[in-house]
Amino acid sequence: MSDKKLTGKIARERIRVMQVPRPPEGLIDRLKSLGDASSIVSDIMDELGIVGALPASQFVPTIAGSCIVGPALTVRNIMQREHAYEAARTRVNKMAEFEAHNLAMPGDVIVIDGVAGISNMGGISAQTGKRQGEAGAIVSGAIRDVSHSRSVGYPVWATEISPITGKWRIETVEINGDVEIGNVRVSPGDIVLADDTGVCFIPQDRAAEVLLLAEKKAAAEARKCKLIDEGLAVADLPTNA
Amino acid sequence: MSDKKLTGKIARERIRVMQVPRPPEGLIDRLKSLGDASSIVSDIMDELGIVGALPASQFVPTIAGSCIVGPALTVRNIMQREHAYEAARTRVNKMAEFEAHNLAMPGDVIVIDGVAGISNMGGISAQTGKRQGEAGAIVSGAIRDVSHSRSVGYPVWATEISPITGKWRIETVEINGDVEIGNVRVSPGDIVLADDTGVCFIPQDRAAEVLLLAEKKAAAEARKCKLIDEGLAVADLPTNA
Amino acid sequence: MSDKKLTGKIARERIRVMQVPRPPEGLIDRLKSLGDASSIVSDIMDELGIVGALPASQFVPTIAGSCIVGPALTVRNIMQREHAYEAARTRVNKMAEFEAHNLAMPGDVIVIDGVAGISNMGGISAQTGKRQGEAGAIVSGAIRDVSHSRSVGYPVWATEISPITGKWRIETVEINGDVEIGNVRVSPGDIVLADDTGVCFIPQDRAAEVLLLAEKKAAAEARKCKLIDEGLAVADLPTNA
Amino acid sequence: MSDKKLTGKIARERIRVMQVPRPPEGLIDRLKSLGDASSIVSDIMDELGIVGALPASQFVPTIAGSCIVGPALTVRNIMQREHAYEAARTRVNKMAEFEAHNLAMPGDVIVIDGVAGISNMGGISAQTGKRQGEAGAIVSGAIRDVSHSRSVGYPVWATEISPITGKWRIETVEINGDVEIGNVRVSPGDIVLADDTGVCFIPQDRAAEVLLLAEKKAAAEARKCKLIDEGLAVADLPTNA
Amino acid sequence: MSDKKLTGKIARERIRVMQVPRPPEGLIDRLKSLGDASSIVSDIMDELGIVGALPASQFVPTIAGSCIVGPALTVRNIMQREHAYEAARTRVNKMAEFEAHNLAMPGDVIVIDGVAGISNMGGISAQTGKRQGEAGAIVSGAIRDVSHSRSVGYPVWATEISPITGKWRIETVEINGDVEIGNVRVSPGDIVLADDTGVCFIPQDRAAEVLLLAEKKAAAEARKCKLIDEGLAVADLPTNA
Amino acid sequence: MSDKKLTGKIARERIRVMQVPRPPEGLIDRLKSLGDASSIVSDIMDELGIVGALPASQFVPTIAGSCIVGPALTVRNIMQREHAYEAARTRVNKMAEFEAHNLAMPGDVIVIDGVAGISNMGGISAQTGKRQGEAGAIVSGAIRDVSHSRSVGYPVWATEISPITGKWRIETVEINGDVEIGNVRVSPGDIVLADDTGVCFIPQDRAAEVLLLAEKKAAAEARKCKLIDEGLAVADLPTNA
Repeated sequence: MSDKKLTGKIARERIRVMQVPRPPEGLIDRLKSLGDASSIVSDIMDELGIVGALPASQFVPTIAGSCIVGPALTVRNIMQREHAYEAARTRVNKMAEFEAHNLAMPGDVIVIDGVAGISNMGGISAQTGKRQGEAGAIVSGAIRDVSHSRSVGYPVWATEISPITGKWRIETVEINGDVEIGNVRVSPGDIVLADDTGVCFIPQDRAAEVLLLAEKKAAAEARKCKLIDEGLAVADLPTNA
Repeated sequence: MSDKKLTGKIARERIRVMQVPRPPEGLIDRLKSLGDASSIVSDIMDELGIVGALPASQFVPTIAGSCIVGPALTVRNIMQREHAYEAARTRVNKMAEFEAHNLAMPGDVIVIDGVAGISNMGGISAQTGKRQGEAGAIVSGAIRDVSHSRSVGYPVWATEISPITGKWRIETVEINGDVEIGNVRVSPGDIVLADDTGVCFIPQDRAAEVLLLAEKKAAAEARKCKLIDEGLAVADLPTNA
Repeated sequence: MSDKKLTGKIARERIRVMQVPRPPEGLIDRLKSLGDASSIVSDIMDELGIVGALPASQFVPTIAGSCIVGPALTVRNIMQREHAYEAARTRVNKMAEFEAHNLAMPGDVIVIDGVAGISNMGGISAQTGKRQGEAGAIVSGAIRDVSHSRSVGYPVWATEISPITGKWRIETVEINGDVEIGNVRVSPGDIVLADDTGVCFIPQDRAAEVLLLAEKKAAAEARKCKLIDEGLAVADLPTNA
Repeated sequence: MSDKKLTGKIARERIRVMQVPRPPEGLIDRLKSLGDASSIVSDIMDELGIVGALPASQFVPTIAGSCIVGPALTVRNIMQREHAYEAARTRVNKMAEFEAHNLAMPGDVIVIDGVAGISNMGGISAQTGKRQGEAGAIVSGAIRDVSHSRSVGYPVWATEISPITGKWRIETVEINGDVEIGNVRVSPGDIVLADDTGVCFIPQDRAAEVLLLAEKKAAAEARKCKLIDEGLAVADLPTNA
Repeated sequence: MSDKKLTGKIARERIRVMQVPRPPEGLIDRLKSLGDASSIVSDIMDELGIVGALPASQFVPTIAGSCIVGPALTVRNIMQREHAYEAARTRVNKMAEFEAHNLAMPGDVIVIDGVAGISNMGGISAQTGKRQGEAGAIVSGAIRDVSHSRSVGYPVWATEISPITGKWRIETVEINGDVEIGNVRVSPGDIVLADDTGVCFIPQDRAAEVLLLAEKKAAAEARKCKLIDEGLAVADLPTNA
Repeated sequence: MSDKKLTGKIARERIRVMQVPRPPEGLIDRLKSLGDASSIVSDIMDELGIVGALPASQFVPTIAGSCIVGPALTVRNIMQREHAYEAARTRVNKMAEFEAHNLAMPGDVIVIDGVAGISNMGGISAQTGKRQGEAGAIVSGAIRDVSHSRSVGYPVWATEISPITGKWRIETVEINGDVEIGNVRVSPGDIVLADDTGVCFIPQDRAAEVLLLAEKKAAAEARKCKLIDEGLAVADLPTNA
C-alpha cells in the first residue's frame, strides 16, 4: 500500500493512516445479517458505556431502505480562508475527498467531518466511491447531485443537501485522523453501521463484543415479536427485551 | 375496564383516566371519508377560535400517504435523573408507553409528549400498538426502528428519528393527562386527524361541530376545483372557498 | 396584457410588473436538457461571482425527481396585523397569490417570499397554477395540501408544510417586485432551475452566458464519468471537471 | 420636504413615502411617561386583536435600561446578487440606510427589515442617526460597532451583532414601504415603543386608542403593586389587573 | 397549611403537594456559602451519576452576579386551546403561578415548566414572589417586565424575555408535580442552585451527600488556585482538582 | 522551548507546533491602538478576499468593553467515546487545554475548537491563562465559572456558558493544528482581534498588509465622524468611508 500513487490533493503527512485497519473476518457479514440494526447496536453500546449513535432525522439517508456496514475511512474538511469568488477565479481547489476514494478498500465507508451549508461530496465523487467498492458515506455537512449518487446505488447519510460547491470554499486538512461526527468521536477503522433509523460508530476494539451482544439481543427481540403476534396480553410481555 | 390487568410500569394513580372517552357513533368514519383533511379541519378550528394544528414538516409521517383519525390516548415522558449509563447498568427502565398500548381500544391514537433527541417508541412497541388495533401515533420527540413500524403498517408522526433508546433516559410520569404537543394542548379523547400536511387535535366537545362545518367546506372546495377544471378564469373564481 | 381582468385581491400599484419578461427563444429547453443541473448552474454562477443557489434540504421538493426551469413571477407575503381569529370572524382575506396565477404565462415559476410557519399556498392554488401552465413554485414559508398538489403534478419547493392557513394571517404586499428567498435576491424574469439537489435563480441578463458555460461543463463532467466507468485510477482522473 | 436633497443611494421611486406621518400632539410624550411599557402596550393590543410585540431576547437592546417611543421610518434590505468579494473589488455599495437618516425627522425610529448574519447598520450610521435626532433603531439582522453607537447614546434593538459589513452584500430596495419585522407587520408612521422587555409596533390609526387603554391599565397595575406592598394576601389580590 | 386560603386559579386536585418539603437545617446556608457553585455541584452530580445542570447561556439570569439556593416549588404551564384573541375578549385567564406564590414558603424557588415564546411571569408576579420571601425563579419559557423584577431584587433565570402575555394563551395544569426543565427532571423540594454559569437541580434525597462532596471539592479548588497564584509551573499543577 | 516540561495530558506528536510564531515587532500594539477595530479589520479582509470575522452575538464576550489582540494558540477538542458517568467513575480526564497554557507565551490568545453544550474551559483554567500572560480566549463551545474568569480579568468570547464539565466528556486531540471556529479557518500564529462587535482572525502572512490598510481606513472614518459632528448634511457625506 505504501507505494500507492497519490492524488497530491493533500500533503502526505496529513494522511495519518494510509490504510484503515481491516475488521476481523466475518464481523461485517454477521452485523449485516442483523438487518437494520442501528437501534440494537446503539442499545449494546449503551450497556457498555459507549457514545456512538446518531439520528437519521439529522443524518438523512439519500436512499431509503439502505443498510450498510463497514470500516470508517475519515476525512476532515474545514472552511478555507479565501473568499469563494477569489478561489473560483484563481481555480485553487483544496478538497481532497478523492484521495479518500483513492485509498479506499472495498467495503470502506467514507466518513466526512465536513462543513455545514456547503457540498462536501458530489455525484462524480459518489460514482468514484461506488467504483472503488465503497459501501457508502456519512457526511456531516451538505452533499450534492443526489440523483446521480442514487442512480449508481451509492447511499449517503448527510445533514444537508445543497448545490453549492465546496471546491472554492473548503479545504481537506486531514485524512484518517480522529474526527467528530454529530458529537460522536470516530477513528479510522471504527465500524460504521447505518440504516433508516440512524448511524452507529462502533469502536474497532469493541466491535467483536458488540456483535455478540447484538446477536443475542436480536434473538430476544425476535422472540418478543413472536409473542406479540401470538396474542400474548401486553401486561404479560417480557420487559427490557 | 376497571379490573384490567396493568403492566405495573407506572403507578396506578398516575393514570388519570383508564379509558379514553369514545367519540360519537359515526364521527370517526365521516372524518375519514373527507380524505386528507388536516387543512380543512384546521380552517374550521380557526373559525371557531381553536388552536389545534401542527405542521407535517415538523411532525413528519413515517408512511407517506397515510391518513388516520381517532381519539387520543396521551402519554407524558420526561427525562429521568440518572445518567443513562448508570441506569443501563442497573437496568431500571421507567418508560411506560406499553401501559398505553395495554389500555388502548381499537382506533385509538397514542399521543406522546416525549423527550427530544431520544427514542420514545420503538419497533416492538409499534408492532404491539398495531396488534391492539391502534390507528397510529403522534410523538413529540424521537422514535426508532422505522422500517419495523412501516413493515407492520403502523404510521407515526414524529419530530425526530434516532436509534438512541429512552429506556435508560426517560420516565413516563403520566398517562391520559393533559399534554402539550408542539404548542397545542391535547386531552385524552380529543380527536386526532393526521395526514401528509399535518396533524390536527380537535377538542372532544367541539368535534361534532367541527365535522359538520368541515363537510360543508369540503363540498365548497370540490365545487371550486370543478370550476377550475372547467376553465373558469382566475379572476372569476369564488373567493374564500 | 394591460387590459387583463384582475382579481382585485391586491392594489394595482403593488403589481410592479404585469408580465414577467420572456426568456430568449430556446434558453429554457436547453437548460432543461441538462437534466438535474442545479449543481452545474451553481458552479457556473460561482465562477461569475453570482449568489444564486439554495439547498434542497431547506427548500424541500414535494415531488422527488422533478426538474423545472422557467422565469420567476414573484410574490411577497408578510404577516398581517390582525389576530387570526379576528380576521377569521370578519373574513378579511388579504392573500393574493391567485393574482399571480392570473398573471402567469405558461412555463412561469411562482416564487413566494412568504411567511414562516403558515401556509402560503394550498391545493386549490396549486391546481390553479397547474391549469395556467405554470412549471411549479418555490416558497419560502409553508405550503399545505401536498397530496393535492402532487396529484395534479404541480411540484413545489418549500421550507415547511403546515395545515395552518395564511388566509387570516398573511397579506400579499407586492407582486413582481424584488424579493429575497433564503438569502438569494430574485427579480421577476430571473430564470429558476430546481431539482432534487436545490434551487438556482439565474439573473435574467446573465442567463445566456450561464447556459453556454453550463453546457460546456456538463460535457466535461460526462467525459469524467466515462473515464471513471472505464476504470481510470483515481490518481489519474482530471481535476476540477 | 419634496425638494430635500437626496443621497442618491436608492432610486427615488423606491422611497414610497418621503416623510413619515407625524403622530398626534402629545401622544409620544404620554406613551413615554408610562415608563417601560412594552408589556402594557402588548396587552392592550391583544385586547384589540392586533399582532405587534417582539421579544427582547430576540431583538436585544444595545443599551440596557433604554426606553424609546417614536414613529417608524422603514428600510428594507435584501441580499445583493454579486459575491461580496466581487462587489468589494468594484466598490459597488447598494446600502441606503443613510437615505433613511437623511429623511428622518427628530424622534423617528429607524426600522430595518434587514439581512441576517450581516451588519445592516454601523457606528457611523448610528452617529448620523443620533445627530439627526432619531430616537434609535430596530434592526432585524445584525448591526456592528456597538461601542460606537453606545458612546453616542443611540440605542438599537437588533437580532445579531457582527463585524461583517453589508456594504458589499446588501441592497436597500425600499424605504418607507410595508415591512415585516420578526413576524410583525410595520408601516411607516406606526408608533414604535421599545424597552428591556421587547419592542411594540402600534398601528398609527390605533395609537390614540391604545394610549388611553394603556394609561388606564398602568394605573390599575400601580394600584395592584401598592396592595402587594401593603401586604394583602395573595389569595385576596384582584385578578387580571 | 391544609387550611390555607387558595386563589382558586387552579383546581385543588391539580396541586399535587401543598407544601414543598423543607431541606435539612443548615443545608441551604452551607450551599450558599460556597458562592457561585453551579460548576462544583454539577461535577459532584456527575460523579454520582445524576443529570441536573443547565447552561446560563440558555437559562439567562436577569440580575448578573446573583446566586440563589432553595427548594423548588414547581409549576407546569401548557398552551391553552382558545385563540388568544377569543380568550382576551372573554377575559378567561387560566394562569395560576399566583397560586404558587400563595403556597410559597420563604426561601422557595419557583420553577416553571412553561411555554416558549410567551411570558410565564410578569413584574407584578415577581414583586409578589419577592414579598412572599422567595429566593427567585427558574423559567423554561419567556418572562416579562424585567426592569420591574430587577427593581425589587427578584432574580429570574429564563430562556426568553417577551412582552407577550400568557394570560390569554397559557393554562397552568399542575403545581408541585414532576416537571422537566431543559431536559432535567425536577420534583418539588429538589434543591435549586443558580448563578452566572447555570442552574443545578439537586435531588432532595441526595442533597446532603452532594453538599459534603461539594465542600470538599471547593477546598481542593481553593488550594489549586493558591498554587497558581504562587507561581507553580503548569506542568506541576495537580490534576482533576 | 524544545526542552519545556510538558503536562503529559496529550501525546507529544499531537502538538503540531510547540511555540506559535511571534508577530512582527509593533504589529500587536498598532492594532490595539485602533481600539475596537473588528469592523475595520473585517472590512479590510473583505477587500483582500479573506474570510475571517465572527459575530459577537454568537461568540459572546464575558467582559463587556474588552478588546484583545494577539497570536492564536489553537486547541481542538472532540467528544470522547465513553459515557460521562463511566469516565467520571474511572476518573479518566482527556482534556488538555492546560498544555496550551503551559505552551503559551505572554500575549497569546487561546483559540479552542471545542464541543457544544459542554464546558471547554473553567475558572481555574482561566486563572492559569491569566497568570501565563495570555490576552484571553476564543471558545467555540461552552465555558464555565464566568464570575471566576471575570474576577481575574481574563476575557473569553464563547458560544455558550454551562456548568457541565468537559472533564469526563471531551478529549483534546490536537494542539496548534489548523482549526475551524464558526466557519473561519484559524492556524496557530494567526492574529486574533476581539471586541464587543466580534472576533477577527487575520492570517499571519497578511497581517502587516491588513494593519496598514486598517490604519488608513480608521483615519478616513475619523474624518467622516468629524464631518458628521460638524453638521454636514447627510446627502453631502462622503461615501464608502
